[in-house]
Amino acid sequence: MAERLESRKEDVLEANKEDVSTAESSGLPPNMVERLRFGEASLNARIRSLGEIESLADPVGRAISVDRRPNGLEVARVRAPLGVILMIYEARPHVTVNAGALPLKAGNAVILRGGLEARRTNAMLGALWRESLSEAGLPEDAIQVVSGTHEEMQDLLQYREHIDLVIPRGGKGLIETVSSKSAIPVVKHFEGLCHVFIDEGADIDRALAIAVDSKCLMPEVCNAMETLLVAEPMAEHMQRIVRAFSENAVTVKGCEKVRQRVPTVLEATEKDWRTEYLDNVISIRVVEDIDKAIEHANLHGSHHTDAIVTNNLEHARRFSREVDSAVVLVNASTMFCDGQTLGMGAEIGISTDKLHARGPMGLEELTTYKFVIYGDGQVMGQA
Amino acid sequence: MAERLESRKEDVLEANKEDVSTAESSGLPPNMVERLRFGEASLNARIRSLGEIESLADPVGRAISVDRRPNGLEVARVRAPLGVILMIYEARPHVTVNAGALPLKAGNAVILRGGLEARRTNAMLGALWRESLSEAGLPEDAIQVVSGTHEEMQDLLQYREHIDLVIPRGGKGLIETVSSKSAIPVVKHFEGLCHVFIDEGADIDRALAIAVDSKCLMPEVCNAMETLLVAEPMAEHMQRIVRAFSENAVTVKGCEKVRQRVPTVLEATEKDWRTEYLDNVISIRVVEDIDKAIEHANLHGSHHTDAIVTNNLEHARRFSREVDSAVVLVNASTMFCDGQTLGMGAEIGISTDKLHARGPMGLEELTTYKFVIYGDGQVMGQA
Repeated sequence: MAERLESRKEDVLEANKEDVSTAESSGLPPNMVERLRFGEASLNARIRSLGEIESLADPVGRAISVDRRPNGLEVARVRAPLGVILMIYEARPHVTVNAGALPLKAGNAVILRGGLEARRTNAMLGALWRESLSEAGLPEDAIQVVSGTHEEMQDLLQYREHIDLVIPRGGKGLIETVSSKSAIPVVKHFEGLCHVFIDEGADIDRALAIAVDSKCLMPEVCNAMETLLVAEPMAEHMQRIVRAFSENAVTVKGCEKVRQRVPTVLEATEKDWRTEYLDNVISIRVVEDIDKAIEHANLHGSHHTDAIVTNNLEHARRFSREVDSAVVLVNASTMFCDGQTLGMGAEIGISTDKLHARGPMGLEELTTYKFVIYGDGQVMGQA
Repeated sequence: MAERLESRKEDVLEANKEDVSTAESSGLPPNMVERLRFGEASLNARIRSLGEIESLADPVGRAISVDRRPNGLEVARVRAPLGVILMIYEARPHVTVNAGALPLKAGNAVILRGGLEARRTNAMLGALWRESLSEAGLPEDAIQVVSGTHEEMQDLLQYREHIDLVIPRGGKGLIETVSSKSAIPVVKHFEGLCHVFIDEGADIDRALAIAVDSKCLMPEVCNAMETLLVAEPMAEHMQRIVRAFSENAVTVKGCEKVRQRVPTVLEATEKDWRTEYLDNVISIRVVEDIDKAIEHANLHGSHHTDAIVTNNLEHARRFSREVDSAVVLVNASTMFCDGQTLGMGAEIGISTDKLHARGPMGLEELTTYKFVIYGDGQVMGQA
């Protein structure tokens, strides 16, 4: 597939240009057109990514545990393919490369249904997948790119005898529809309303470096910070804090205590604490102490990724225990919520569910397991 | 709770007597009345079981993996409570003890809804749970026994903001209803249509010992064998095979090839290959070879527990790889599909799903995990 993306680059770029021009003339919002764009740089990044996935170890057959029981049975819990995975995602063509390769590497078949605005690009990538699979001696249906209507997709979501897992990845509407209609088990890749909390006594330089990295490096990703929580005693640094974001072209909203100190800051309302901006906007809230910070994150957040900047060991331990999120960081940027960075290899996305997989979802999370037990005639009745 | 079950034994037995007599006078089938019965022996078994659960290690906080990344981040994947678990099960009062204790031990709250025929017994056990929790200084709502109507339960299944996991345990009707109505993730504990395959060249004494143990020790449990597959060359032993079951008061049904050899055997139809008898009935089929045995198990079985009796290493490896079941055994009885026997400690049931937990579900499977990451100021932008 990597070779094909290289040799057929022009075809893919051409198909994408058509999708983009259709989207523009039909008035798709500019940020969604940007997501749809699949230029030469993105394509090269995908080719590299396929190489990385190739170099990962195959998880299937790897034992999670092996034990010999007192009765002599040898009990192994061994990873096995899940079966057929249905991915439903927005009009982001690069997903059609990665979300084909990763499930396949874990021994699964996969059905890919991206946003219809990327229909031509996806169809081209689907054709390349078929050719590649066939050339590699694998069933060419192992990766299928489909472009069914919403009604057809809702029908597909009833096929629980034939599909083992649905992964919807995207915004609230998509996730809600898939979750409520699906008869097949779902692992959601939903929004990230992530916090950074600057604790009393934190080093302000370190805190600012972490907060700015968490917000500004890639504001459009799910693990970008949306709300900065500042312990009351640290509010004396508010001028500097606000300036650090303004200098990065980030619009700052704040609670009353923030605005008392920096009057130019816009007013943050209750709604802001629940908003995933995915944009150059931040809301800042002054909280009394770590208790209120933990309460705020658990109440308003999406249990995705939250960080504390602190020098207080007890607070570090409490925050990491009591904040009920998939990823909790102490003195590090929320940007590190990423399968590759965490040593899991490439990821298919970040699960916001608690069942099966939580947080970054890599090859292992695309498998199930089975118990394989060897004996030499053991029966229970005589034991 | 163990102490309370001891000191309040008479109250529990009395409540159960009332349930049983109501069930009998309302014409509940005898095998369901048997399940409902909670006598002194069952109660003592539960008391012992609580002691065993107490002695298990608490899974919460235990790391699944710990790693130091090249950038100096320390990344731990740590077990955490799932949250609130809803158990829906049949009128088997002993579950009201175990399915309270295990989720609690893993740091969860649990809502228990057993079959309404056991209403009085369950209400009494629920009262004892409240008293026990309160005395132990835990929230007395951490284990709640409810007896809502079907309509009320269907309402409860919509509370996905408040309940993290539903475990339905029982027959087809119950499982179907819960799975199709639930907005909350479900891990099903469904039927076990389990096979034993006697391979060509197997030791017939060993094969019979395993087959009889798998069928006769506890015919009513989900991992009891329902269908015996016999490789063609082993069919010469059919007289002995049939006799081994007849002697254990098991009714034998068979395919044409079985009946040619033992004409007294009843005729097995297509429906038999798909029937979980849970009773003293077995169906026997002669299959050409291991290919046909694997095909039969994957096509007709319920992907629960399947065993092969063989001396052929290649066949052992193929059967364990290719039979797509939660538990695959080589030369051992299907009775060993049990959390305790497999070294997982007490189990809450046996998952027939592939997501989150497959096969016996113990304390670890009643947790989720979170990533806890410690750094000293790492940001990604400067890395």
